[in-house]
Amino acid sequence: MGDKISLADKLATFQDHWSPRTITTFNDCDVMVVKVKGEFTWHSHEDADDFFLVLKGVLDIELRDRTVTLGPGELYVVPKGVEHRPVTREEVHLLLIEPTGTPNTGDKATAAPRKLA
Amino acid sequence: MGDKISLADKLATFQDHWSPRTITTFNDCDVMVVKVKGEFTWHSHEDADDFFLVLKGVLDIELRDRTVTLGPGELYVVPKGVEHRPVTREEVHLLLIEPTGTPNTGDKATAAPRKLA
Repeated sequence: MGDKISLADKLATFQDHWSPRTITTFNDCDVMVVKVKGEFTWHSHEDADDFFLVLKGVLDIELRDRTVTLGPGELYVVPKGVEHRPVTREEVHLLLIEPTGTPNTGDKATAAPRKLA
Repeated sequence: MGDKISLADKLATFQDHWSPRTITTFNDCDVMVVKVKGEFTWHSHEDADDFFLVLKGVLDIELRDRTVTLGPGELYVVPKGVEHRPVTREEVHLLLIEPTGTPNTGDKATAAPRKLA
């Protein structure tokens, strides 16, 4: 049985962007923290809803028909199959939850490898 | 497709304790906020790991052999089948994530009804 997990402590262990760190798992999901800045690629997850909770900064989640803007303490779930592109001006810290094995780009060929923190 | 969700706004919609509000769902899980104060009952969930993230205050999660103390920005996953009892001195605000249909007491006979916020 694990110990408690501090989001701030986990975020302090890395600096790179768009490379989620898995900090724990539950019910076959990965709980991850990630630092992001700039534009990600347009993508969707065919089999998984995509949970975003902003911990720091302001994140735009661009959808094809509108943009959802999230500040600290705000969350959004991108439904499975819906194309989206995260975009930020400044560095943003996020809590992400996805079924274990979900590729972050929606495509295993281009996905960041699973990393633990 | 839903809108963004503010944890603070959702928490402002109710005052009662130990009565989780489902604020969204993803991948067959309920994302909930709850206000707690005092002692809950000892319980376990046979089929679900139990995700706790403290948003405000200090929560003790008593286990049979030790206590895990969580402050804001700290999380803990109680593995399925492990007996636990949440205890607080002051009001604590939590983000909870569980498979939809998981009884909060571990027993459908005594569980709080599912409420949306």
